[in-house]
Amino acid sequence: MSEDADAMSGIPVSKNRQHEETTGERILRVAAEKFAEKGYHGTGVAELGDAAGIKRGALYYHIGSKEDLLFRLSRRHVEEALARGRAVMANAVGAVGKFRLLVREHLRTLAERRSEVIVVMHEMHALTGERAVQLKALRSEYEELFATVLQEGVEEGAFRSADRIEVLGVLSMLNYTYVWLDPNGPVSVDEIADRLADLILHGVQLPQRDTPAA
Amino acid sequence: MSEDADAMSGIPVSKNRQHEETTGERILRVAAEKFAEKGYHGTGVAELGDAAGIKRGALYYHIGSKEDLLFRLSRRHVEEALARGRAVMANAVGAVGKFRLLVREHLRTLAERRSEVIVVMHEMHALTGERAVQLKALRSEYEELFATVLQEGVEEGAFRSADRIEVLGVLSMLNYTYVWLDPNGPVSVDEIADRLADLILHGVQLPQRDTPAA
Repeated sequence: MSEDADAMSGIPVSKNRQHEETTGERILRVAAEKFAEKGYHGTGVAELGDAAGIKRGALYYHIGSKEDLLFRLSRRHVEEALARGRAVMANAVGAVGKFRLLVREHLRTLAERRSEVIVVMHEMHALTGERAVQLKALRSEYEELFATVLQEGVEEGAFRSADRIEVLGVLSMLNYTYVWLDPNGPVSVDEIADRLADLILHGVQLPQRDTPAA
Repeated sequence: MSEDADAMSGIPVSKNRQHEETTGERILRVAAEKFAEKGYHGTGVAELGDAAGIKRGALYYHIGSKEDLLFRLSRRHVEEALARGRAVMANAVGAVGKFRLLVREHLRTLAERRSEVIVVMHEMHALTGERAVQLKALRSEYEELFATVLQEGVEEGAFRSADRIEVLGVLSMLNYTYVWLDPNGPVSVDEIADRLADLILHGVQLPQRDTPAA
């Protein structure tokens, strides 16, 4: 299924990161690494400047504030996941097919962006005010992709339920893989995705034939 | 099923916390709250002492070091989850029954110990050396409970698989609920547990009758 999957989603497994990194990108990358390692509250602005090789004044020019930095890198991560998910929804056919590809893209994104993922998972609650509202809205949009696929499955007669608790359960299983997912491990990220999709699908997909009641 | 479940596991839904808190317990509670709020690296020892109403010298007498504090509260949390899981394994009957109760106890523990859970989820990687080894071993023991139940289900002919990826998938779904599980929300913790158990069981439980191959 691998080649079809990639052809359908139109998204390469890994992105070309060979282009010249801008100062803004470098700051975001360094911030993701530092926040992931030492926590958002445990990382000072001076330390970020040192690690990025940039003076404090210039740092503030580029980022505004430490919280803005946390917001920007979190937003970028969720927006990328959302773009990949939307590409699946636009191109894949049928609830089962869409679901399998959404799971693959989800795990690929986690595997490719480990620092950002750790930061979003551990630190998003440090965001306040309008930034917290915006990030939450983006995360809800992403959650909505899974809700939509489950609902489409129900309408196709293939899935038994698309309730919010099931949607949250599915996303919980996928999100928490960031703790143990190892892109260099013996089982590939795509195979892990397929097996988790199987585990979930056998839970939400109705049996193809009715079995007599016991 | 609620009353049976409790009778079978022998574990009350909530523990009586009315006993006199010792200094050691107070320090652990305050540390869990501070680490959950500001991160392990973002919380100073002086701040912990102030919050616990204890001088720095006495604090070191009680805890040794900040890392020791993180270790002790993480260990206590995992040990309690393990004790509750083992009680289920000793008292419940059949893989399905054990599995359902393990899921309930897991979510109850998460709901009751929110600060500790956040700390373990976000900060366990800050542990080093022997402490990291010990905590990892405890977490593996807990994981083993779920692996055992799935394996028992396979041996009973009720479950299709008990591979490590499925075990990790199940635990991932359950663990990540700490982000959205709301003990005061419209759906009770036990009902959420039952619905997630359903979602998983319909994935791992074989249909009761074979359906002809298509």
